[in-house]
Amino acid sequence: MLVEQENGTVILRRTAEYQPPRSWRTWLIGRPLPTADAPHQTIGKLVGLAVFASDALSSTAYATQEIMVILAAVGTAAFGLIFPISVAIVVLLAIVTFSYQQTIHAYPGGGGAYIVARDNLGELPAQMAGAALLTDYILTVAVSISSGVAQVVSAYPELFPYRVALSVGLVLFVMLMNLRGVRESGTVFAVPTYFFVVMMTVTVGTGLVQAALGRLGQVVNPPPLEALHTAQALTVFLILRAFSSGTAALTGVEAISNGIPAFREPRSRNAGITLIWMSVILGSLFLSISFLAGRIGALPSEQETVISQLARTVYGGRGVLYLASLLATTVILFMAANTSFADFPRLSALLALDGFLPRQLAYRGSRLVYSRGIMALAGIACLLIVVFRASVTGLIPLYAIGVFLSFTLSQAGMAHRWWKIGHLAPDQEVQERGSVLRYMPRWQLRMVVNGVGAFCTGVVMLIFATTKFRDGAWIVLLLMPTLVMAFSAIHRHYRNLARALSLEHYGAPPAVTRHRVILPIGGVHRGTLAGLRYARSLSDDVTAVYVALDPAEADRIKKKWEMWGEGVRLVVLDSPYRLLLEPLLAYIEEVLRQRQPNELITIVVPHFVPRRWWHNLLHTQTALMLRMALLFKPGIIITDVPYLVE
Amino acid sequence: MLVEQENGTVILRRTAEYQPPRSWRTWLIGRPLPTADAPHQTIGKLVGLAVFASDALSSTAYATQEIMVILAAVGTAAFGLIFPISVAIVVLLAIVTFSYQQTIHAYPGGGGAYIVARDNLGELPAQMAGAALLTDYILTVAVSISSGVAQVVSAYPELFPYRVALSVGLVLFVMLMNLRGVRESGTVFAVPTYFFVVMMTVTVGTGLVQAALGRLGQVVNPPPLEALHTAQALTVFLILRAFSSGTAALTGVEAISNGIPAFREPRSRNAGITLIWMSVILGSLFLSISFLAGRIGALPSEQETVISQLARTVYGGRGVLYLASLLATTVILFMAANTSFADFPRLSALLALDGFLPRQLAYRGSRLVYSRGIMALAGIACLLIVVFRASVTGLIPLYAIGVFLSFTLSQAGMAHRWWKIGHLAPDQEVQERGSVLRYMPRWQLRMVVNGVGAFCTGVVMLIFATTKFRDGAWIVLLLMPTLVMAFSAIHRHYRNLARALSLEHYGAPPAVTRHRVILPIGGVHRGTLAGLRYARSLSDDVTAVYVALDPAEADRIKKKWEMWGEGVRLVVLDSPYRLLLEPLLAYIEEVLRQRQPNELITIVVPHFVPRRWWHNLLHTQTALMLRMALLFKPGIIITDVPYLVE
Repeated sequence: MLVEQENGTVILRRTAEYQPPRSWRTWLIGRPLPTADAPHQTIGKLVGLAVFASDALSSTAYATQEIMVILAAVGTAAFGLIFPISVAIVVLLAIVTFSYQQTIHAYPGGGGAYIVARDNLGELPAQMAGAALLTDYILTVAVSISSGVAQVVSAYPELFPYRVALSVGLVLFVMLMNLRGVRESGTVFAVPTYFFVVMMTVTVGTGLVQAALGRLGQVVNPPPLEALHTAQALTVFLILRAFSSGTAALTGVEAISNGIPAFREPRSRNAGITLIWMSVILGSLFLSISFLAGRIGALPSEQETVISQLARTVYGGRGVLYLASLLATTVILFMAANTSFADFPRLSALLALDGFLPRQLAYRGSRLVYSRGIMALAGIACLLIVVFRASVTGLIPLYAIGVFLSFTLSQAGMAHRWWKIGHLAPDQEVQERGSVLRYMPRWQLRMVVNGVGAFCTGVVMLIFATTKFRDGAWIVLLLMPTLVMAFSAIHRHYRNLARALSLEHYGAPPAVTRHRVILPIGGVHRGTLAGLRYARSLSDDVTAVYVALDPAEADRIKKKWEMWGEGVRLVVLDSPYRLLLEPLLAYIEEVLRQRQPNELITIVVPHFVPRRWWHNLLHTQTALMLRMALLFKPGIIITDVPYLVE
Repeated sequence: MLVEQENGTVILRRTAEYQPPRSWRTWLIGRPLPTADAPHQTIGKLVGLAVFASDALSSTAYATQEIMVILAAVGTAAFGLIFPISVAIVVLLAIVTFSYQQTIHAYPGGGGAYIVARDNLGELPAQMAGAALLTDYILTVAVSISSGVAQVVSAYPELFPYRVALSVGLVLFVMLMNLRGVRESGTVFAVPTYFFVVMMTVTVGTGLVQAALGRLGQVVNPPPLEALHTAQALTVFLILRAFSSGTAALTGVEAISNGIPAFREPRSRNAGITLIWMSVILGSLFLSISFLAGRIGALPSEQETVISQLARTVYGGRGVLYLASLLATTVILFMAANTSFADFPRLSALLALDGFLPRQLAYRGSRLVYSRGIMALAGIACLLIVVFRASVTGLIPLYAIGVFLSFTLSQAGMAHRWWKIGHLAPDQEVQERGSVLRYMPRWQLRMVVNGVGAFCTGVVMLIFATTKFRDGAWIVLLLMPTLVMAFSAIHRHYRNLARALSLEHYGAPPAVTRHRVILPIGGVHRGTLAGLRYARSLSDDVTAVYVALDPAEADRIKKKWEMWGEGVRLVVLDSPYRLLLEPLLAYIEEVLRQRQPNELITIVVPHFVPRRWWHNLLHTQTALMLRMALLFKPGIIITDVPYLVE
């Protein structure tokens, strides 16, 4: 310990060798890291793609299947619609990508939906974006892990009954890894992401070649067909519902715009190019899978994923390449869940710093990560997995609505930003004018691009909310306003607190006129006298209080007090119902009512400190209960005088 | 509230109309009763039999069946032994009854095994008797309720899968009734007990008449035979094991000797006659059931009790009389469990008053009953029921060992008492001499009677422990010494505590030489200043302590403290690992190490009192955690200064 002295203030500094004490946590998540160790590192496009794409790319593992589950209500004949619906989703993907390009260039410091909405639309939209993103991250974990386990179960059907336990176990494992604070070294991400891209390209490539040569077979022994609903006619509503399910493919597209600061300079340019690469890979994989799933006669099922059916049809059985494909899919799904474990705590810390969430979420834990956010995310995700029995189909209706709300708010915020720039700072625009379109101001073009993005994603959100309402979207539609209200209530509390504690216009309080000390006693013994000694050191106005359960005992106490009480007044409270705390609290209430201004009231509570912990079980712990009952009562100061029994 | 003044002491007395505040407990167990309401009432022999016999008589419901379960390992051919074994048990019953007659006359104030052993054998045997009785009471609840539910299940086989839940529910119901403090009005007991005696007499009477006339049939559709063990040869060991199981019939015989004070005068005589009635009824019912069970070819089974098989064979089907017999059996079993709910809390209060159990067990709850004992009993009994899946056969090996240990200790105590009387107070005996036997001093005769009782029950206990060891008796044989050790440890603690707190040889403590006050602060605001104001009122030696997680923040605090700190010294504790409590605790340890004799150290902890309870979730509760960490540290006084945020 180094001691420094600085105008009267003493600073005790830890030496560099100092190590905090070890505990069970050290064993679980590793030794604490000093604050000075916070890392900084930038990445290039190839690694950036690996780091940020896992969430988006992994959604190809379930998007096609979720379209099929809806269409299955009509019958397998409706599977002809899989490809057209997928094309519509890829068009939407293109619009969103184009729109996000502008966000990336406008926010080189990171342009998540919360920040963009806060900057351009105000507090309420920002809170809505925050609520949408938090739900989105939670669902990413639940859906990705459930889908990953579904891939494992496809390859090893004997694990099917254990899928919920497996999923929960995996969430806890990812949580633990994140509590350790995994250094995101890039390569850790690069290997699984590129492994997935390669394996999927090989799988769909082989499939497409086989299809072109007319050699693509049909699924052997397909699993039992599952439909989410009972048999229905093919309606526009049903097609829109299938489309909504498929939009899950777009989740994760916004990841890059959050992570721009991680890119090497020129940051925005690198991030933008990476986003385009990602969208191209995502779009083509998704289209290919949808096309092939229809051709091979795959059937949606909880027991075997479409990816598994596709891989074993293309590779002609459950060989090495089949297993490698499923392994790649599983691993990228876990990476996607892992991404949320970085995003959720970061966003909740941001919200906490802005006073919308409990402040504790902004404190870094012993491994420099936001431990509380990580644990909260894991807890809620596990709950969802258990409630929905690890079914991707069950979780999907809750999923994309948050994603599309955040898309809409983010793009609307950008559109509004361009409008403001165009109207408030036209000078700046003049210089750049003419570079792309001669007859339209650049800000207008940009506003249109983001406006179209906001409009399209907004419409999709409405479609989603309507078609999925009864399947579970209502939960999210109820949850969002609840979250926003909670944010506001928390914000109000912190603002009021800051005002109440503020030292502005604070005058010195008036002098204390009287200090009353109350000393509850349970008997007259050395412990009581230790309390009495302390009470008398505080004030001359001391009252000892005894609760009489038994009149005979009360008489004994009175006699003893006359001998040992040093002349201090004793009040005996009669308790005909053998209650201990209640008469004492009633008495204190009475004293409080009679309190004069600037009078202090201190309760001195003597208590034993037994030598062994289990000895505490042998005492009624009245002192503890009294403390608990009084702790949150204003105007009363509680003093614990311990008495060690040796 | 009435105020009385008595040489300086103020007594605040509740007026007669005062009612304590209502809570959820009022709804559950009724309004609190004042201490003055404790009842006193005496009963005659007829009601006394009803009140005290339920435990003993109810054991006829399972004793025969448990003999059969053991013999079943040999095959149904061995069932010829049921009756001889039952005769042996009834002989044992006669010896015990005879022996207890003397206890009843010697202890008109109530002669439970604990009291008799404490008076005559010393502390350790008394503790053993206490441990034996407590286990016995717990098992009475578990066995009686399980057997009662088994009767219900026999009549309504569709309830078989729910027997554990039913049993637990019933234990909780009986617990609740006892927490309400049912007035034991006598009639409440008389109706079910005599209903049982009548129904059973009718059932076995009809059966015996049918047997005499040669019209007694065989059980139609007997349940599947269950044997506790795999097929075995008929050995002496097996016969002794069957005998041991049957001794469960003797449980509850000691109840009357506990309850003598409840009888009308002449108490001992009335109680003694009641005991003989009870034994006669118990013996004849048990013998009849055993005889008939063998004749009708009943089979022991978890699915249908022997009583049920007997009743439906005698009555020729599941008619009204059959249902009435089973109802009577079920109800008396619940009454037996209810008896333990009176005995267990009373004994544990007695042990608590003697300092062998936590003192809380001796406090009467709001309804004047020993609520803690009642809840403890229910909790442990439920645990046993769940662990043993409400199987009487599973529980029996744990049961009778405690009963027979208490019999042995009680009778041995009595034998020793007669010996003492004969040797220490011969004068008294001379007067009475010659009344029964001329040539043997009366005390010798009495000693022989109790000695034979002690010897027989002791031998049975050894047989039981040997033959049932592997079936579960080992649990009880381990538990008893553990309980006795716990009693001793608790006793030691209370004795040491009393010595440590005693005011004998207590001189006034030396004057306080120094009072150091430490004020941990988390910021500089109105709450901190309220704490500072209080701290300065305690002493001039105040040190404010701030834990610096962030150097920039620490600088701000230093500046603010220079302005608002009233010149009080500030210590900044550097915390490179972002720990809050640990540096503070280390600092306090250091201060403690440097403490001089008669120096007081007070920690003043300012804390917010938010307006709404959920606001507490928005704060880290460092104050609370600090308090918890320091509460049991000797030599430190903790003071909470609340600050209401309005």
